[in-house]
Amino acid sequence: MTGQVSRRGLLGGGVAVAGAAGAFAAGRTTAHAEVPAAAGDDARSATYAFRGAHQAGIVTPAQDRLHFAAFDVLADDRAELVDLLERWTLAAEQMTAGQPAGTGAVDGDVRLPPDDTGEALDLPASGLSITFGFGPSLFRDGEGTDRFGIADRQPDALRELPHFPGDILDPARSGGDLCIQACADDPQVAVHAVRNLARIGFGTVSVRWSQLGFGRTSTTSTSQSTPRNLFGFKDGTANVKAEEGAALNEHVWVGDDAGAGWLAGGSYLVARRITMTIEVWDRQPLGDQESFVGRTKGTGAPLSGGEEMTEPDFDMPGSNDQPVIPTDAHVRIVHPDAHGGVRMLRRGYNFVDGSNALGGLDAGLFFIAYVRDPGTHFVPVQLAMSKNDALTEYLKVTGSALFAVPPGAGPGEHVGQSLFA
Amino acid sequence: MTGQVSRRGLLGGGVAVAGAAGAFAAGRTTAHAEVPAAAGDDARSATYAFRGAHQAGIVTPAQDRLHFAAFDVLADDRAELVDLLERWTLAAEQMTAGQPAGTGAVDGDVRLPPDDTGEALDLPASGLSITFGFGPSLFRDGEGTDRFGIADRQPDALRELPHFPGDILDPARSGGDLCIQACADDPQVAVHAVRNLARIGFGTVSVRWSQLGFGRTSTTSTSQSTPRNLFGFKDGTANVKAEEGAALNEHVWVGDDAGAGWLAGGSYLVARRITMTIEVWDRQPLGDQESFVGRTKGTGAPLSGGEEMTEPDFDMPGSNDQPVIPTDAHVRIVHPDAHGGVRMLRRGYNFVDGSNALGGLDAGLFFIAYVRDPGTHFVPVQLAMSKNDALTEYLKVTGSALFAVPPGAGPGEHVGQSLFA
Repeated sequence: MTGQVSRRGLLGGGVAVAGAAGAFAAGRTTAHAEVPAAAGDDARSATYAFRGAHQAGIVTPAQDRLHFAAFDVLADDRAELVDLLERWTLAAEQMTAGQPAGTGAVDGDVRLPPDDTGEALDLPASGLSITFGFGPSLFRDGEGTDRFGIADRQPDALRELPHFPGDILDPARSGGDLCIQACADDPQVAVHAVRNLARIGFGTVSVRWSQLGFGRTSTTSTSQSTPRNLFGFKDGTANVKAEEGAALNEHVWVGDDAGAGWLAGGSYLVARRITMTIEVWDRQPLGDQESFVGRTKGTGAPLSGGEEMTEPDFDMPGSNDQPVIPTDAHVRIVHPDAHGGVRMLRRGYNFVDGSNALGGLDAGLFFIAYVRDPGTHFVPVQLAMSKNDALTEYLKVTGSALFAVPPGAGPGEHVGQSLFA
Repeated sequence: MTGQVSRRGLLGGGVAVAGAAGAFAAGRTTAHAEVPAAAGDDARSATYAFRGAHQAGIVTPAQDRLHFAAFDVLADDRAELVDLLERWTLAAEQMTAGQPAGTGAVDGDVRLPPDDTGEALDLPASGLSITFGFGPSLFRDGEGTDRFGIADRQPDALRELPHFPGDILDPARSGGDLCIQACADDPQVAVHAVRNLARIGFGTVSVRWSQLGFGRTSTTSTSQSTPRNLFGFKDGTANVKAEEGAALNEHVWVGDDAGAGWLAGGSYLVARRITMTIEVWDRQPLGDQESFVGRTKGTGAPLSGGEEMTEPDFDMPGSNDQPVIPTDAHVRIVHPDAHGGVRMLRRGYNFVDGSNALGGLDAGLFFIAYVRDPGTHFVPVQLAMSKNDALTEYLKVTGSALFAVPPGAGPGEHVGQSLFA
């Protein structure tokens, strides 16, 4: 048994001493408490506290893997919804600490279903973060009904996103009353979290859609290097990072002045399932790919020169009286300079969901961005991209959703308490 | 830059010295050659040689992640198929060594599409193995046509699997002329391998189906501990392991005497996409779950006592004149003692493919087994399981395929050379 915080060790030890994650002990002694000899165990012992001023999973250094799920609320009863949020909060606090959900009854009463489904029992916390969000339909459903008595608290900015050119949305991959973003450095831990939260919500919620992401495409901390998306390019170089406190307040966290005080310290989560036509992309010449992006494929430097972190020079002349970074290059179209300085905190993941009907892979980017206001920080950028960005030819948006992400839960609170208080 | 073998380092160094993987160098000097600060980099520098007596990816210690793809061959020309196998062999040898496919032209001629799609450029080899297989339809297609002049070399054992009770097969997730199993400790590396092989095959093959697996469920080496499936139980405890040389010859490798000499040293790959009704499972009492499996959930010990590796005592009496391991327990139904001693080398992975129409997760086990003869080593066990196993109530088989896996490619050979020679 290693010194890491593992669910199995905690269950089996009789008396267990945990670190920052808190202590937990169960009575039954078990054998085989070893941690599996999987890759990366050392890095997987990281834990992030569930409670705090902000929810974890936003500025938390982007973990490697994602399981995202949107839920429909089946109940019409406010008390039942609040009860679920209380139970979800408890389970999220346990699982992010590397503990099983509930009482750890996998070793308990054989007459009852286990409180935890078990597939993460031997695994450390793996940097798990669990982030909850509320969709527009939670406040007012499709028929306009205020099921939970919160319609008057719906923020003005929490509306269905407008239709953008290039959107080919599948309703079964869009929207949702609630969402859960589970990020971890082990996919089994992220899947375990969503699966157990869905189990806890049985009868009150059902899964509307769910998305696995296997490779982070964004950097949310200066301690991380920039990964690559499925176009093979570095992605998210200019992302808002955790260390930029002023930028977070300006671009990510909702302020006290937004007309929905319960959301202060929270954010908005934009989710977009962006299918990439990778087989077509792969047949484009390297020079064209680089022109579409506005950066080199190898190092990620702007076509105007320098290194990855060098600011692009959009005025530098190229051939044929055109700038060296083309007018329709992605890096130019979405650059903050073109949008009054607005920035997003992106947290997307690559995905491959089997194959498509054309004999290729159903692959792309599950885009996630956190912004202070989608109306100012997302919609104008997306509109410009849909209309003018050279990359758009290789993208189809097949799912879309917007959620208000409440601030973090304080001691004794459930997530979203400020909304229901 | 670290001492690991990384594609980016190999590309960028001008003169690069590689380890066991072989040396590779390209002319253009690039900056930013660091390896991303992702989890598990140390473990991810493992490389497995592509060439050898057997293909890698069978007894190779099971990596954490899977991308599996089945292909239809569009061509009717034997030379074109052989040419593809030659190009696939070259690319597989490069990628498993941690190099880009082809010439690494991501830094090369801007007028041509890159030889490598780029998304694994900064990543180490991550223990990548690539394993190729040939389906029955490659030898004789749906109309019985011998497209490639190999019908007379089709092994007797390479036939469509029979229909089993509980099979609800989706043709779009079943069969295939060719298959590629890519396993790695980083999913982006496994996806990159399949994606580039599909790209190289453009016009000659199309993807018929593809499956990602996120958590290995089997142990193929005594150096590995036993992971858990999505029922939350340890899986594959009694698997054939790499260290059991005699058992490999008896149960996994095809011998010289099998009537298809080209396959000697190869194996048969059985792939089954097993959907688990996890939401129903999660509501079963712990005692019932343990009775269905025949093992405890916590430690994986047989219900007859001991520890995980203790042999089950199927005769030990329980209550009510029943044995303590029930007559329909999974561990009893599939135990080698019930099948003349046959064993399989299992290499399955957990999967979650979004959600299903019932408000749950589309989740389960992508079962992969390597056997010397599916007729003796898989079909009887699967029949017994379909008819008598208590677990079957919680399983639906939604995809199925069988492939002959040729022996490893020797120096200068392409994979499958013995079939086409």
